[in-house]
Amino acid sequence: MRPLFLLTNDDGFAAKGINVLADIVVDYGDVVVVAPETNASGKSHSLTTGVPMRVRPIDTSNPSRQVFACSGTPVDCVKVATEHICPRKPDLVLSGINHGSNSSINVIYSGTMGAALEAAASGYPSIGFSLLNHRHDADFSGCEPSVRTLVTEVLSKGLPQGLCLNVNFPNLPLSQIKGMRVCRAAHARWTDSCERRVDPYGQPYYWLTGHFECNDHAEDSDQWALENGYVSIVPSRPDYTDFSSIASLAQRLDRDM
Amino acid sequence: MRPLFLLTNDDGFAAKGINVLADIVVDYGDVVVVAPETNASGKSHSLTTGVPMRVRPIDTSNPSRQVFACSGTPVDCVKVATEHICPRKPDLVLSGINHGSNSSINVIYSGTMGAALEAAASGYPSIGFSLLNHRHDADFSGCEPSVRTLVTEVLSKGLPQGLCLNVNFPNLPLSQIKGMRVCRAAHARWTDSCERRVDPYGQPYYWLTGHFECNDHAEDSDQWALENGYVSIVPSRPDYTDFSSIASLAQRLDRDM
Repeated sequence: MRPLFLLTNDDGFAAKGINVLADIVVDYGDVVVVAPETNASGKSHSLTTGVPMRVRPIDTSNPSRQVFACSGTPVDCVKVATEHICPRKPDLVLSGINHGSNSSINVIYSGTMGAALEAAASGYPSIGFSLLNHRHDADFSGCEPSVRTLVTEVLSKGLPQGLCLNVNFPNLPLSQIKGMRVCRAAHARWTDSCERRVDPYGQPYYWLTGHFECNDHAEDSDQWALENGYVSIVPSRPDYTDFSSIASLAQRLDRDM
Repeated sequence: MRPLFLLTNDDGFAAKGINVLADIVVDYGDVVVVAPETNASGKSHSLTTGVPMRVRPIDTSNPSRQVFACSGTPVDCVKVATEHICPRKPDLVLSGINHGSNSSINVIYSGTMGAALEAAASGYPSIGFSLLNHRHDADFSGCEPSVRTLVTEVLSKGLPQGLCLNVNFPNLPLSQIKGMRVCRAAHARWTDSCERRVDPYGQPYYWLTGHFECNDHAEDSDQWALENGYVSIVPSRPDYTDFSSIASLAQRLDRDM
């Protein structure tokens, strides 16, 4: 039996990036796409609670490439797809290719990476792919060789349990991509992230906006890799624990009552 | 000038838990509450994009305890509050007290912890508090001494830059709480997380549901602490990087093109 890939994203089932990804990986196995009906960027790991979800068949004519749209978030897509839509357990869950960066701090806001991390938390090997270009018609051709390398590598040799890969591509033509680097997420933040305006009735309202501020360009960071023409690969786990500070904080805070 | 606390949560500004928290910390400083209008549980780190947000004054009669409701997510609340609502830079951002657990894997879905991690990412010391009781009228009295201890400790000695504390309280009366333990998040997952039903027209729809499955009860985990009557404290960073697997994955995946 051919390997089964579950594909999702946060840009929606009709986005170019997820269709480019399906075009590539259908060479290696069967594809089931279960992706949001519409743009779900910035949905992070959010869940649909309080209302039920629908899953709408988009194209089920080809058994090797089935496409469904889900009314829920990217994380919901992984849950409903693995439990109810996929004909068998997926061998690999892929999310993206996202239109826009999920490097550094961006990963925590990303619906695309929310889905990849949800798959990892549920025991499926997974990879999230993102291109540093937000345009709806972005050119994904530079991504293809690395996608092929990573998908075949993870299919054949797996990933440590609970781990997913956060893969970002520089917005470069293939000829200018220098290679792939495994790295850590750079430290960064968004500043001036909220703009105040006044409506015609004199009342304030606010738009999310902001500037990406990164002063961490060390050679082991994803920002360094991307700024220097490399594909960045950050091994990622759905775990926020800061192991490095447990011992010192235990000295300060552990106590019996 | 008194210290300034920014308080938020994901249960909404009117929830009992955030009002209990404000009742406690107003003893140590001025309080600004900017919390979601309604329940935003499960919103994780999601952002409001594509539509603007509103902030509605609820009670501004007491300059030491001002309350606002925001139409956005918990993360949006932190952004709009720190940039536009707080009269000065908050000394400490507190999220909760959440009605329900944010231990183990639950942290990644939590709007309450999304807000605490957003504050940490933005450079504010922060603590997320959660009680292992979902009821709207839960008894938070067992939390009070630990909240006082942690708030005064962090106010006086700070936290490492970019770190927040994920604090969970066992659902016990104060007399049965044994102490506080700094720990790591236990490995766990939600299974059977999606229930399929059929509507009156013969079409399927899906509800999120599920069972919490945790086989990790090691003594250094938050699940062990909570199951043994301790308040769990997980030092947490908005960073999914799995540092332990960087070296081995670099051997497999680093390459030049």
